[in-house]
Amino acid sequence: MFKKVLIANRGEIAVRVMRSCREMGLGTVAVYSDVDAHALHVLEADEAVCLGQAEPAASYLNIAKIIEAAKQTGAEAIHPGYGFLAENAHFATACAKAGLVFIGPSPRVIEELGSKTRARQIMEKAGVPLIPGMLEPTMDADVLLAEAQRMGYPVLIKAVAGGGGKGMRMVAKAEEMREACASACGEAQKAFGDGNVYLEKNLIQPRHVEIQILADSHGNVVHLFERECSIQRRHQKIVEETPSVALTPETRQAMGRAAVAAAKAAGYVGAGTVEFLLDHDGRSFYFLEVNTRLQVEHPITELTTGVDLVRLQVEIAAGAALPFGQDDLAQRGHAIECRVYAEDPEADFFPSPGRLLVHREPKGPGVRNDCGVYEGFEVPMDYDPILAKLVTHGRTREEARQRMIRALQNYVVLGVKTSIGFLTDVLASEPFIAGQTYTDFIPRHFAGWRQSADDLELAALAYAAGESSQTNVASGPGKAAGWPTPWQTLGGWRL
Amino acid sequence: MFKKVLIANRGEIAVRVMRSCREMGLGTVAVYSDVDAHALHVLEADEAVCLGQAEPAASYLNIAKIIEAAKQTGAEAIHPGYGFLAENAHFATACAKAGLVFIGPSPRVIEELGSKTRARQIMEKAGVPLIPGMLEPTMDADVLLAEAQRMGYPVLIKAVAGGGGKGMRMVAKAEEMREACASACGEAQKAFGDGNVYLEKNLIQPRHVEIQILADSHGNVVHLFERECSIQRRHQKIVEETPSVALTPETRQAMGRAAVAAAKAAGYVGAGTVEFLLDHDGRSFYFLEVNTRLQVEHPITELTTGVDLVRLQVEIAAGAALPFGQDDLAQRGHAIECRVYAEDPEADFFPSPGRLLVHREPKGPGVRNDCGVYEGFEVPMDYDPILAKLVTHGRTREEARQRMIRALQNYVVLGVKTSIGFLTDVLASEPFIAGQTYTDFIPRHFAGWRQSADDLELAALAYAAGESSQTNVASGPGKAAGWPTPWQTLGGWRL
Repeated sequence: MFKKVLIANRGEIAVRVMRSCREMGLGTVAVYSDVDAHALHVLEADEAVCLGQAEPAASYLNIAKIIEAAKQTGAEAIHPGYGFLAENAHFATACAKAGLVFIGPSPRVIEELGSKTRARQIMEKAGVPLIPGMLEPTMDADVLLAEAQRMGYPVLIKAVAGGGGKGMRMVAKAEEMREACASACGEAQKAFGDGNVYLEKNLIQPRHVEIQILADSHGNVVHLFERECSIQRRHQKIVEETPSVALTPETRQAMGRAAVAAAKAAGYVGAGTVEFLLDHDGRSFYFLEVNTRLQVEHPITELTTGVDLVRLQVEIAAGAALPFGQDDLAQRGHAIECRVYAEDPEADFFPSPGRLLVHREPKGPGVRNDCGVYEGFEVPMDYDPILAKLVTHGRTREEARQRMIRALQNYVVLGVKTSIGFLTDVLASEPFIAGQTYTDFIPRHFAGWRQSADDLELAALAYAAGESSQTNVASGPGKAAGWPTPWQTLGGWRL
Repeated sequence: MFKKVLIANRGEIAVRVMRSCREMGLGTVAVYSDVDAHALHVLEADEAVCLGQAEPAASYLNIAKIIEAAKQTGAEAIHPGYGFLAENAHFATACAKAGLVFIGPSPRVIEELGSKTRARQIMEKAGVPLIPGMLEPTMDADVLLAEAQRMGYPVLIKAVAGGGGKGMRMVAKAEEMREACASACGEAQKAFGDGNVYLEKNLIQPRHVEIQILADSHGNVVHLFERECSIQRRHQKIVEETPSVALTPETRQAMGRAAVAAAKAAGYVGAGTVEFLLDHDGRSFYFLEVNTRLQVEHPITELTTGVDLVRLQVEIAAGAALPFGQDDLAQRGHAIECRVYAEDPEADFFPSPGRLLVHREPKGPGVRNDCGVYEGFEVPMDYDPILAKLVTHGRTREEARQRMIRALQNYVVLGVKTSIGFLTDVLASEPFIAGQTYTDFIPRHFAGWRQSADDLELAALAYAAGESSQTNVASGPGKAAGWPTPWQTLGGWRL
């Protein structure tokens, strides 16, 4: 086992990885950019190395600097978190060349599964069901038009090097095809330096359901069941849950088996996620892609299966065998994750960086808040403005849902706009309660959402309370008036 | 179901009960004494009613005032928490007379199980194994001496109305018997107004193992497995864990069956705990007593069984049937609880009330902190000075233990002395690692414990950091110096 691990990331995921490392008795090294000098992940680490300026290319994407930091501090392994260099085969290769262990799959696996068409080829061979689609990417609009005709509209144009919705277009009919192809290729060229795209059949009201897998270097592969991540905004997940309300035990088993087959076919080692689209019938599912890293939404799997995925990633990277087999694993209860962002849900979710004047995290039984910030911290404009991942666990879906609403209502953030009010309304909505969570959930039910007046009023009151120690926003027959600090006043309120 | 619940308690347990109530959509009413006007449970409640002065008789034990508060606020049910009136049959009776639902068993059950000799009679009839001992209490030293002779030394003298170790004496040989009897009877008379005592056989190096039970008003009774609470100081639990390392599956099953039989024999309804002593052989166990309330250490059962015991207490009180049967319940992983007190472990654990200058709670996967205080709060001298119950959950005992040590090291309290350093050393000790947790654990391994110099130095540094914003106690090659607030400085350190 290593003695020291460098975490090549920032924010909540860097903090979360460090916690497992510390529990394993490993030293932790943080890296940071100049705007992150006071960030939580720097404060939580045993040691910290400044990489350079805020722009990712100079800091969190700066392979040479990160490897130098590992050398300098004597770290023997690097955990990449998610995002940044987590799925960068060059980085994994550079680590190996420098004699460092990259905590993740091999460069070859990252590269093969990172190419969407190569991944489809591997899956087809392994018998994993694929969405009807092209196996060879192209920029030729005539080829794309003919293929679309063959598989039937609607179709999805996707960039071969893509991710995050860049270079992606849904096309409903032939007349829109040529223009969409030109625009998608152009966007892909700009974003990834590769304008090649391919087509997939577009399913009607599908769900996004993914399977967590773990594979060790001794040939053992298990899955840790599903996560349903259908509630998305522009292909960015917002709310995730497990188990999926849409899976029968049979479909769950079939999907798990397909994910294990996918991992075996790819020669996978480490933690990974096989993403599927589940068709409206709740039975047919199609391979989407493999994420060769820890997933943002991994906590809901940890809560329902009782495992620490980060600890296992580290153990696997150190050569250990999985400490359990498939039959030892079971889902218990229900878990929901809400991604809490510094953003304005009323202004198309535009980022809202700035200083956190007040930051009170929710607590209590079944509540976990994976948080990367603290009160007084200035959320920089340079990175994804995620504040925390709020996760609740309950015996039933309804218990987890009620717990999440309570936790969101107890989450107090002032100084930046956040998605907390939006998330509360999503969780309280009829379609969510009914489990009608399809990938069109947000545009269908929450287009043009506005913060309720009540919330605005309370936010204003709370802000005033933060300014004046004499304001008492709580009420009730016996409440003492004139509490001495904003903390106490804030502690008493609810949204 | 009720609409509003009054919580007749304070501190962490009042806060914890309110959280479940809020998740169930129930309004919450806090009660408080004048020194608790700014306490967390008051801030967390929807409404709060002042009962009177700090002394418990005037406030948290003031039955008339509490019932008046319920009437005044329209609360329909009262949750008593633990301690104070939780096991007071008069209070349960007074609630019923006032048309209020007492969330707990009936007054008859509380009274019968509260009498240690009556409880032994019920258990004997139900076939629950009893420690060899007397069924009739007395103050007659001759009778006690003869009984001790019959069952063999060592014996334990216990007050019939007792609790918390008052009126309790261990006697190793006949020559010490008369003096011990006189002293025990005198102490019992003073503490409980009843000097009657009885004898029990004293086991050598036993473990304290208890079973959580749940019984509804429809005749369904289940157990939720064991908690081992052997690590005690003067019969006060300090560290609890589940599963017990000492139980085989067979003994666990037998003990669970005995607890269910005990609950059925007593006509029990609600959540309760049947306490046993487990003999050194790991197979023989003996009935100790039934606690007719929520137990302090209930969170470790919640984490390993996935249920919310408070929610179930409320549902059972409202007449609902248990939502699961015995076969639906299973233990998963391992959970440990440490009771974090404002006390001085170097001065015989003398209470250390005062203002919390700094209070940083540990967080992260598998960490739950049931806490009743906040930074800036003045811990009053009038009540049990518990700050929080820190609980960790892991896949294995070792994972939970490592997680607890990490969490304790991340728990920063300044302004009062705490048991955090002591608990850390307990968790890190060889006998704890080896599972040699007998009831003599503390006197055997931790008599005369002293805080290590390192801890003292860091505490002093941290305190200085709280006074001066220019101090930077963290170190490492790239750490920025001169962080602007004590928060940030404290965030970076480890004990």
